[in-house]
Amino acid sequence: MHFFIPPTAELPGLQAAIDGKTKPLGALGELERLARQIGQVQQTVQPQLGRPCVLVFAGDHGAARAGVSAFPQEVTWQMVENFLAGGAAINVFARHNDLQLLVVDAGVAHDFGVRPNLLDAKIAFGTRNYLEEAAMSADQRDAALARGAAIVRSLAEAGCRVVAFGEMGIGNSASAALLTHLLTGSPLADCVGRGTGLDDAGLARKRELLARALQRARLSSTADAASVLAEFGGLEIAMLSGAMLAAAEQRMLLLIDGFIVTAALLVAARMAPAIVDYCIFSHRSAEPGHLAQLRALRAEPLLDLGLRLGEGTGAALAWPLVRAAAAFLNEMASFAAAGVSERQ
Amino acid sequence: MHFFIPPTAELPGLQAAIDGKTKPLGALGELERLARQIGQVQQTVQPQLGRPCVLVFAGDHGAARAGVSAFPQEVTWQMVENFLAGGAAINVFARHNDLQLLVVDAGVAHDFGVRPNLLDAKIAFGTRNYLEEAAMSADQRDAALARGAAIVRSLAEAGCRVVAFGEMGIGNSASAALLTHLLTGSPLADCVGRGTGLDDAGLARKRELLARALQRARLSSTADAASVLAEFGGLEIAMLSGAMLAAAEQRMLLLIDGFIVTAALLVAARMAPAIVDYCIFSHRSAEPGHLAQLRALRAEPLLDLGLRLGEGTGAALAWPLVRAAAAFLNEMASFAAAGVSERQ
Repeated sequence: MHFFIPPTAELPGLQAAIDGKTKPLGALGELERLARQIGQVQQTVQPQLGRPCVLVFAGDHGAARAGVSAFPQEVTWQMVENFLAGGAAINVFARHNDLQLLVVDAGVAHDFGVRPNLLDAKIAFGTRNYLEEAAMSADQRDAALARGAAIVRSLAEAGCRVVAFGEMGIGNSASAALLTHLLTGSPLADCVGRGTGLDDAGLARKRELLARALQRARLSSTADAASVLAEFGGLEIAMLSGAMLAAAEQRMLLLIDGFIVTAALLVAARMAPAIVDYCIFSHRSAEPGHLAQLRALRAEPLLDLGLRLGEGTGAALAWPLVRAAAAFLNEMASFAAAGVSERQ
Repeated sequence: MHFFIPPTAELPGLQAAIDGKTKPLGALGELERLARQIGQVQQTVQPQLGRPCVLVFAGDHGAARAGVSAFPQEVTWQMVENFLAGGAAINVFARHNDLQLLVVDAGVAHDFGVRPNLLDAKIAFGTRNYLEEAAMSADQRDAALARGAAIVRSLAEAGCRVVAFGEMGIGNSASAALLTHLLTGSPLADCVGRGTGLDDAGLARKRELLARALQRARLSSTADAASVLAEFGGLEIAMLSGAMLAAAEQRMLLLIDGFIVTAALLVAARMAPAIVDYCIFSHRSAEPGHLAQLRALRAEPLLDLGLRLGEGTGAALAWPLVRAAAAFLNEMASFAAAGVSERQ
């Protein structure tokens, strides 16, 4: 699969438009950086952020039953039911921040039947256990990438210009830790955290299991992202990577959530480095491996609230800041138009 | 004037309500702290944040003409006109974040006539120049405090439960620097910043002028907040202090903006220390004196975006986070209700 993602280009007049607004020069801080990015992605000083959407990709992990999570595996499908019933944190935040929410079954180990508001993109009933064998086949990985891309392309056709990415999958912070270690070169210990809330003994066990998985696979340090993804990825992570690549190709804005979503972005950024020009990093997660990811991507997140929930909650919480950045560019008066005197 | 503001009390069942939601324990980070505060202020696990409002208090400063600001004094009334026309940053952010905006003329050196959406609470056409004499009389100060309180009490009667505080006034970062120095004990140099954008020479001049003002007034280091306010305050700052005190007395939530608004809070907190229990600190301003204020109030702001615009913009940008915190407490399903398994 190939994605054509050019870097975003400077837009003549954009900085002047920002500087001409009725405010001291630079006084909106990070929001001005954000307005510049939005203007560059859309190549206009009048950006339109139509029909923003949160996509939550869900999948199960074969390794979850080996004890890498504080919660049992069935919580994945139970939480998908919670999403469909409107009772999870991402439902609440999407509702109050005017974001459409779509849940994608990328590979949950459960049969949901045909359900409103659930996109059935299931590749398998969970990945295989990477402690014993590769988590997915090359065909499964490619199918996941392709389905993620297809979902986003259909959103783009419906007028969506911003996608916030979220995920659900018991065990996926373990998978993300392996991807982060292999794709950033950070020590494994810096990439492994407590996930949904392991205690000290659980954390030690998770580290030991993941070190064993790395030994089993014997990937070379120059392994490409696609191989790493098949070996240790989740189906929801692979589908996220494909969705992100298609979103940038469509010149959409990508709202990046926390540790798991950023692991998917690491994969995508290896395949098409310019994707980061389209990414807004919503928050700094309390999961420690997020730091290694942000450093590797040279990313500065908007929020730092100690969140570690996933589901796209950080992205949904940051969305009003993105909307505000576009809105000030579109709607604020200039000194000239408002008849306000400039600096002495 | 006396305000009765008790500390907020623990609410039995509040922490259990937060912990029972379908998310790992503590996974919503600062939003959980916020939900606890909101629940404690309103003494309920089902808080209602009805009719949130931004109040922008505007006033002029006699010292502005002495050269403490990068912008000419008439920008105060020109920006009030900009607010009334809907073209300023605070208009844009209030509009997109569902906040009602009210502008209060506390003491602008301009005759606006009778105008829709402008509350005429004018005490004087600006303060006197504190380089030569006290900025306001005790009567003017008390009138400003009382009018601020009256405005907020009428909002409370109309069902408002949250007030975001903002300000406009050329020269008011100089006034706020003097208040901050005298009320926190921080060195004057740490309290004085570039305001709307002074260059190095302008900053040096501002420091020198403010040191001279302190010498002129010869306030003792134990001067009470009311005396400090009359000596160096702005009318918009005094009215903010009164409005804040009344808001806490009404058990409203106070959304605190940046450097100028926090200076008004320092005054209010000297008069009624428990007011801080009702305050949500929206952002960390790029104006350096804000740090001394936050330290003195032991405050941890929600956002850190390098903002230094004032008008209540930081508060308006943080409001969706406050709404999200109340919403998750009100609307998220519990593990039991959603049929989601708990930790292993």
